[in-house]
Amino acid sequence: MSSPVLWLNGRLLPAHAALVSVLDRGFLYGDGLFETVRVANAEPLCWTRHLARLQQGAAFLRIPIPCPADELFFQTLQLIRKNQITSGILRITLSRGTGPRGYSPRDATRPSLAISVTPAPEPDPLHPARWQIITSRVRVAAGDPLTRFKTCNRLPYILARAQADDASANDALLLNTDGHVAESSCANLFWIENNRLLTPPLECGALDGITRARVLELAAILRIDTRQEPATPDRLFHCHGLFLTLTTLGLVHVVSLDHQPLPDHPFLAQLHNALLTR
Amino acid sequence: MSSPVLWLNGRLLPAHAALVSVLDRGFLYGDGLFETVRVANAEPLCWTRHLARLQQGAAFLRIPIPCPADELFFQTLQLIRKNQITSGILRITLSRGTGPRGYSPRDATRPSLAISVTPAPEPDPLHPARWQIITSRVRVAAGDPLTRFKTCNRLPYILARAQADDASANDALLLNTDGHVAESSCANLFWIENNRLLTPPLECGALDGITRARVLELAAILRIDTRQEPATPDRLFHCHGLFLTLTTLGLVHVVSLDHQPLPDHPFLAQLHNALLTR
Repeated sequence: MSSPVLWLNGRLLPAHAALVSVLDRGFLYGDGLFETVRVANAEPLCWTRHLARLQQGAAFLRIPIPCPADELFFQTLQLIRKNQITSGILRITLSRGTGPRGYSPRDATRPSLAISVTPAPEPDPLHPARWQIITSRVRVAAGDPLTRFKTCNRLPYILARAQADDASANDALLLNTDGHVAESSCANLFWIENNRLLTPPLECGALDGITRARVLELAAILRIDTRQEPATPDRLFHCHGLFLTLTTLGLVHVVSLDHQPLPDHPFLAQLHNALLTR
Repeated sequence: MSSPVLWLNGRLLPAHAALVSVLDRGFLYGDGLFETVRVANAEPLCWTRHLARLQQGAAFLRIPIPCPADELFFQTLQLIRKNQITSGILRITLSRGTGPRGYSPRDATRPSLAISVTPAPEPDPLHPARWQIITSRVRVAAGDPLTRFKTCNRLPYILARAQADDASANDALLLNTDGHVAESSCANLFWIENNRLLTPPLECGALDGITRARVLELAAILRIDTRQEPATPDRLFHCHGLFLTLTTLGLVHVVSLDHQPLPDHPFLAQLHNALLTR
């Protein structure tokens, strides 16, 4: 494969030339949003949903997206082809760009938009990944409206993931300031109690995840009883199955939480397979 | 004056050439820290304190500072002179740099360090700035260790400042999830009750501000009785004087909170003058 090409503000550029100002508010303040999109058969999956979430986040932060939606899709396809990627992971980053000194976003009116794509194997539809996870010390603010968007303020999630690394775990859960589980560093969380599927409501600090929404829709089609309920970690230790959902892998089977083994449940393989084949 | 020059990873560059990769974790995740330093008489003020805070934050986030302390000071002086700045504001940004895809910081070992300086008038030592402020809807996580450092995750502060802009106010207070005042979007907060000086403890979500620390030291020298106590906004409406502290302006007299006028107090001018003349 030739060296990777990125898309930045309307131009295709080799990676070493895809650069932004050190005065870009994305670099100064994490003042931006992103989407991570899975690419299969050289096409972005769930594009409409990712675009909608990016648009909602951009409206919330009042960052105009400097490219019409159709054009963004076209440019993304071109980028995937230019990089000869069949299976991979795409990242779209929107930042508020440069502006006057200080936090006020009022006069920062030249946003930056960057797209990159890296090859990655397709997840196996028959066998979900198996992760050991821990509960991190990191707490997000209960009720924070920012947690539902994929903002470029990712330090709490980085700290949680670093704690997982230190414990030789695959990932770590973040709680909110009420002591309820929000999500993991990079995924939403579901658990099963007596054939009922449960997940924290967005108000607990969960990202409004694309795969989370798809699992809720699939559960309805499969007539699985589903509830959105706050939960403390204690509750998870007694569940009949725990899994994570993320764009890049589909469903991940959590085989242990804080070194305590957790059971498998038939819903896991069923939902993972439905996620990857529909 | 000639066009501005920035310092980036050991090189002096014109602003248009001071660029980082769109894959730098500072741009992707806000994975970094910064310092805002006032420059007077062509020298950075309180350099040792700013450097110490940067070092503490870098140790907490495990980002090595890619420049020895003495060299950083020397390069900063050179940059100030190159830009012919006598009075101004310096910003040092440390990011974790590029690394493998994903949140884990483990294998991101090439940090970026950028320094910029912009001219700004010296604050008037006799007359503190006068601001009208509001209480924002933004909440930070009570007990979050990240709030005490100047991290590049600034969206809560940007949202608070945007809310101030919308209300034609100069700034806005952020509360924590316990309902206690943390700080303003860009400053620490002090208030006066019966000749006693009060400020929220760091645990409430306040930045470990350089000017905050200097005010606490000056108050001890001036034998002003001082306490660090959590406070709800209600308490502030009944105070005998409210002020903000920030590196760039010293002390700012808050003349109204949520449109309710607040009194002046002799401590304000006294502390502001002491801050700027010592």
